[in-house]
Amino acid sequence: MMIRFPLVVLVLIIGALRCRMARAEQSPGSGNVYTLASVREDLVRQEDTIIYGLIERAKFPSNSHTYDEKYAQIPHFCGSLVEFVVKNTEALQAKAGRYKNPEENAFFPENLSPSIVPSYPFKQFLHPGAASININKSIWKMYFQDLLPLLATPGDDGNYAQTAANDLSLLQAISRRVHYGKFVAEVKFRDSPEDYEPLIRAKDKEGLMKLLTFTSVEESVRKRVEKKASVFGQEVSLESVDNDNKKRKFDPTVASSLYKNWVIPLTKEVQVEYLLRRLD
Amino acid sequence: MMIRFPLVVLVLIIGALRCRMARAEQSPGSGNVYTLASVREDLVRQEDTIIYGLIERAKFPSNSHTYDEKYAQIPHFCGSLVEFVVKNTEALQAKAGRYKNPEENAFFPENLSPSIVPSYPFKQFLHPGAASININKSIWKMYFQDLLPLLATPGDDGNYAQTAANDLSLLQAISRRVHYGKFVAEVKFRDSPEDYEPLIRAKDKEGLMKLLTFTSVEESVRKRVEKKASVFGQEVSLESVDNDNKKRKFDPTVASSLYKNWVIPLTKEVQVEYLLRRLD
Repeated sequence: MMIRFPLVVLVLIIGALRCRMARAEQSPGSGNVYTLASVREDLVRQEDTIIYGLIERAKFPSNSHTYDEKYAQIPHFCGSLVEFVVKNTEALQAKAGRYKNPEENAFFPENLSPSIVPSYPFKQFLHPGAASININKSIWKMYFQDLLPLLATPGDDGNYAQTAANDLSLLQAISRRVHYGKFVAEVKFRDSPEDYEPLIRAKDKEGLMKLLTFTSVEESVRKRVEKKASVFGQEVSLESVDNDNKKRKFDPTVASSLYKNWVIPLTKEVQVEYLLRRLD
Repeated sequence: MMIRFPLVVLVLIIGALRCRMARAEQSPGSGNVYTLASVREDLVRQEDTIIYGLIERAKFPSNSHTYDEKYAQIPHFCGSLVEFVVKNTEALQAKAGRYKNPEENAFFPENLSPSIVPSYPFKQFLHPGAASININKSIWKMYFQDLLPLLATPGDDGNYAQTAANDLSLLQAISRRVHYGKFVAEVKFRDSPEDYEPLIRAKDKEGLMKLLTFTSVEESVRKRVEKKASVFGQEVSLESVDNDNKKRKFDPTVASSLYKNWVIPLTKEVQVEYLLRRLD
């Protein structure tokens, strides 16, 4: 007897099995396996982290002093409180080995001390050219100019250090998602190098962008992110799960706008940059 | 015509109105108003932060090297990687003014530099004796001995710095919730000092604990937390919201156990300690 599944069901089943297997088998060195399925699963999980981050940042009002260089006046430091917190936390996390993982990219890479803990054998899956790709400057600009005004309600509750810490977590989650484009591109390249090589050799950015663009998939991602934002951001009480009313912790369309306008285009930018270096 | 609401509906309506008003009215100094209703609302919102934190920590395997003093061998530092990250991040956040807010309590308070940013006029709502209450040592012990083994699946993916950063966020969320007991106690005391004063004068810990204990409320909190953990921790896809199946990001009973066995008892411990100092 043959049992037939639609492709989407099969992908879900394989995904669930992979997840369980990965959990059972986790051991040093085996955590970073990159396949089309694992990369897709990781991208989906990263959506959740970004949404929790959005909700947690939206808990605080705008707290504009956090971003005001003139307010902070920090001795021996030129910049706003958020820059102070991000630069110094990154320096500390670098010492703790964060940036040994090729999935991580710092916002202030020029500022980092080397890791002071024993190094872990992260799988070297990417082409070495990947190390030179870091578009965190664009993410930083987008975050403060475009995203925060949509996300945070006007106001000041004095929790500037906590606000900056939440900004950092969310920035790191978005950065990780965008730069994961390197892994997406490598997996796609290995899957069909014959499609990519001629475009790479011709330095055909537009052609690569076209090859990487699946409008219907992007639309699904955007919709799923909005649905997740609406589920995770709802008020839950014992009486009801309040999915349809106005008592939400933030507007779910902010999450889908973030993906549509910035995360998806920036990820494709990383993919193109990576592919252009892939044959060097 | 009289419209009659059950009490629980009224509380919900008032809560929603308060929330909207608080957002509209946020301005310097007005963020920290403490009333029975606002304290309850804040406690409910803090549950969400703790649950997001649990889910995000459960994303990583146990990563035991993070907690192993022998592994880290950090120059000029005696302790594990998580201690290194927590102590240094707290020192940085102290400079950024985090602990100026009486709702915040450090895990390593002996290690903190003073704030280097202009101070914000946080409302001085508590009795000065509150400053001497810090039970983070108990929270720290509970977190590593009891909670982490329930939460993290065995394994090692090398992301020790990220793991420690997630530990810190979750520890801070739990600590904030437990020490919020000071505000709960102050609000309750102001509401009916005649009930508390004789017990405080008699240093009657047991009597105070009895007065603060509402078993049915505690049971509701525990149930709500488990429900939230199940809603926020589910896998959400475009096809379905998968609330009943096994594809959860962590076991929701871990959240309710955390509340039942530790958060609720520790909060009451803080309340009793606070009340004992209330008439000094």
